[in-house]
Parts: sequence; C-alpha cells; structure tokens
Amino acid sequence: MRDLSADAKLLSLNTATLGPRRSLAEAVEGCQRHGIGGICPWRDKLAEAGLDKAAKLIRAAGLAVSGVCRGGHFPAADAASRLRALADNRQAVDEAATLSAACLVMVVGGLPPGSKDLAGARRQVEDGLAATLDYARRQGVRLAIEPLHPAYAADRACVNTLAQALDICDRLGAGIGVAVDAYHVWWDPDLARQIARAGRAGRLYAYHVCDWLVPTRDILNDRGMMGDGVIDLPALRGLMEDAGYSGFCEVEIFSATTWWPKPVDDILATVVERGRSCV
Amino acid sequence: MRDLSADAKLLSLNTATLGPRRSLAEAVEGCQRHGIGGICPWRDKLAEAGLDKAAKLIRAAGLAVSGVCRGGHFPAADAASRLRALADNRQAVDEAATLSAACLVMVVGGLPPGSKDLAGARRQVEDGLAATLDYARRQGVRLAIEPLHPAYAADRACVNTLAQALDICDRLGAGIGVAVDAYHVWWDPDLARQIARAGRAGRLYAYHVCDWLVPTRDILNDRGMMGDGVIDLPALRGLMEDAGYSGFCEVEIFSATTWWPKPVDDILATVVERGRSCV
Repeated sequence: MRDLSADAKLLSLNTATLGPRRSLAEAVEGCQRHGIGGICPWRDKLAEAGLDKAAKLIRAAGLAVSGVCRGGHFPAADAASRLRALADNRQAVDEAATLSAACLVMVVGGLPPGSKDLAGARRQVEDGLAATLDYARRQGVRLAIEPLHPAYAADRACVNTLAQALDICDRLGAGIGVAVDAYHVWWDPDLARQIARAGRAGRLYAYHVCDWLVPTRDILNDRGMMGDGVIDLPALRGLMEDAGYSGFCEVEIFSATTWWPKPVDDILATVVERGRSCV
Repeated sequence: MRDLSADAKLLSLNTATLGPRRSLAEAVEGCQRHGIGGICPWRDKLAEAGLDKAAKLIRAAGLAVSGVCRGGHFPAADAASRLRALADNRQAVDEAATLSAACLVMVVGGLPPGSKDLAGARRQVEDGLAATLDYARRQGVRLAIEPLHPAYAADRACVNTLAQALDICDRLGAGIGVAVDAYHVWWDPDLARQIARAGRAGRLYAYHVCDWLVPTRDILNDRGMMGDGVIDLPALRGLMEDAGYSGFCEVEIFSATTWWPKPVDDILATVVERGRSCV
C-alpha cells in the first residue's frame, strides 16, 4: 500500500466537505495552504465561479481534478424531463472536459415522483448512461458510476451496489467505470470480490472516503470524519490498491451539524491529519 | 397470487406495530376484533405476559404464530458475552417452541462495541447461528435469518442481503431459512433471483411488510404503513408466492411519531384496509 503518512499529496478535497456555503476559491486556497493535492468540485461551485475562471484557478493552484460532481439523475416521469436530464449531462461532460477531470461522477437518480417502478427507473438510468457515454467518449471524459448506499435507492440513486454498477459497465463498454465511496459500499458482503473485478476491468476511476457514524442521526448529512466511525478505511484502501487503483483518496463529508459549521482551516487540518493516520 | 381483498386472515400482526407500550393482550384482542389471522410477538411482550400465559392467550384467540422476534445479536467483544448470547438464543428457541411458532426470527447483530472488524462479526454470526441451529433442530424450531437493510450493518445486523443470508443457510443445512422483510430488501437489484433461490431451497419462512417513506426521517423508527411509501408491495408478494411462499403477510411497522401514538383500533383498522388493498 502507498504511504499516506508523510503529506496530503494523495488526498483530494471534494468541495462538499466544506459545506454548501463556501466558494470554490475558498476550497482551492484551502487545499494550497494544507498541501492537499487534488480537488473535486461540485457543479454549483463551478457555476458560481464561472467555468473558465474555475479552470484557471484550479490550474494555477497546481491541483489535480479527481472528479467533477456530478452527472446523472436520469429517471424522469416524462419525455421532456428526460431530454432535459440528457442535455444537462452533456453539459456536465463539457465541464469535466474543460477541467481535465479524472472522471465525471454519476449519481444516477432514484424513482421519478409518484413512481414505484424501481426496475423501470433502473432501465432509464442505463439508457441515460448509454446516451451520455456516447457523448463523453467523444469529449475524452470518463464516466464514473457512484453506487449509492441502498438508503438512497428511492430518492438519489437506484444503482446501489458495485456489482450492479459493474454489470452496467460491462454492458456499456469502454469509458465507464465506478467511483467507490467508502460510506456507500463498506457494508457490502461482496465488496472485496467486486473491487477486484472492477480493477481487472480497469474501471476503478475514483475513491471517496469519510466514515459511518454510530449512531447516524441523519442518513444524508451526518457522515463522519475518517477515523470517527466504524469503517476499516485502511483495509478498504488496501482492496482498492491491490486491485490497481493509484488515484486520489477524495475526502467527501456531508456533515451539516458537526463539520460544516467549523472554520475552513479547522476542517482541512483535521482532514489532513486523519488522511495521514486513518485512511 | 392469493386474494387478500376479502379479509385479514392471511395477515399477521407483529406486536412492534402497536409500539413498545402495548401489552400482548392488547395485541391479541386487537387481532380478534379485526379478524387478523396471525401474530408475531416480541420476546419482551412474552416476558411481560409470562410465557405460558402468553401461549394460552394466543391459542385461545385462535391465532397462528407466524414468528417470534427475535434471536440473534451474536457478535460480542469477549467470550463471556458470546456465551450469554448463545444461552439467550437457546431460551428464544424454547419460547418459539412453546408457542409453536412458524420460525424464530434472527436479527444477527452488528459490530461489537469499538470494533471495525465487519468480517469478524460476520464469522461470529455464522458460528452463533450454527450453535443455535443445533439446539433449534432438537426443539423442532426453524431459524429465519432476517437480512436487515445495509443502514443497520454497524449496529443491528451484519447480514444485509438475501444472497448473504442464503449463502449462510447453504453452509449450515436444514432447519434454517430467511425472513424476507420488504423494508430491508426492496432496493436489492438481485432480489427476484434470490427470492426464487430461497423458494427452491425451501427457505422462505416469513414475509414482513411495511413501506419505505420518502423522505425517511429516522432510519429506525420512521417506517411507513403499506401504501404510503415507494415499495411495490404486490409485485414483491408476487415474487414470494411465485417462489412457493404460502405463509402470512406479517405487518411490522416501527413508527414512533406517526402510528404508535394512535389508538390500537385506528392502527389495526388501517392495517386491515391496507392489507386488503396495498399488499
């Protein structure tokens, strides 16, 4: 396994870790101050900053872009909404291309409003991914399906296991892989086998870390800092690296009450310290 | 598929649906008043009533016992705790035998305090199930592993998919099967295949229904009345019955703020109405 204890060059900061109210510039400057090597911006932060300005800012800071969050959200109740989703995904691909991002993270979407047709939503997801992949290949952007925890199957993403994501990848071919997020997959009894499978297929595009707190007070916004929960993160990184993953450990922590209210430098100092000792 | 629209004879009431403060007698009398055919008592309710008295009460009311909740909680930090868990499970088997229950529901337990060793917890679970199964076979009690939603992997049950539960059953042999709870498994991309597999192996011992609400405000105690959420319950029952399941549809709803505060007859009238129209 790689040695992360010396510095934070292999860490990437997902901008969500600073909460919804910090700007891209604050995130970039924070990474510079704390020696963090990469960044994964959310699209709302890119829009706020302006895409070209954002690209210049990140490049000038010498940061790699471990991903762009996020494309996806394909299932829709009507054809017009589906077309809007596809157009938005093409735009997300363009943004990822402009930033030379390692991948565009795909949070595929859940059930359309009023629907109980999970199988139908999953078909819409695969159709949407296929259409977006055609475009992404032409732009040289890799799509990374992020299987979300099954607790989000209804409202955020109906791709809920690595096996399911990799089955889709196998059907769709080159240029599509997975973003493995510790929070979403740590519980999976099939995890080791599926990470190895993804590695053999060259589909490990991103690795996200945070921790699962006990108790979890809010299933969306009570994620833990690495080391504060029950996930054996070094073991999980071992699986990733044994399978050939050599990219960033991207820190993505949704924490509305514990971390987001803190000053940026407090959050990032802890991210770096835990990155060296707990990831 | 069986026709549930005429009456409530194929419904069973899991006593948790009435909340933690109602007695077994209230549950039994409620089932009688509303024509519900079965009951699944929690062990604290049996202890409150006294086991022999509980058995007489249920028998006199003409109710079938679709299960006893619950055995399990095997993983422990030390040998003494493990032995206590095994003894408690033998007692649970005895209680299920006294009630002629269709099965003893096994909620297997999560990580021991302070542990991040999920694989180790899973080994402890399988060892505990094996030991309990030996005893259960001699008492003529079937063990039903209930895979819990992955959101409970840390603190309630580290068996989180039907596939994982059935792999354990296959290794342990006869007398052990699964309790399929809609809330815990509805999201599983592999669900249809695993239910069919369980049916072929004669391992479908129980079927629990409630609904997944969007949003879910509390991952433990905000489960929905059938029809109020996003689970396609008739389709799921279809999978169960196609696989040969012919037992009760057991209604188990943890709902601390919506249903538990209501009068027993309001809860049960709704259970029966939704049982006829939404299950």
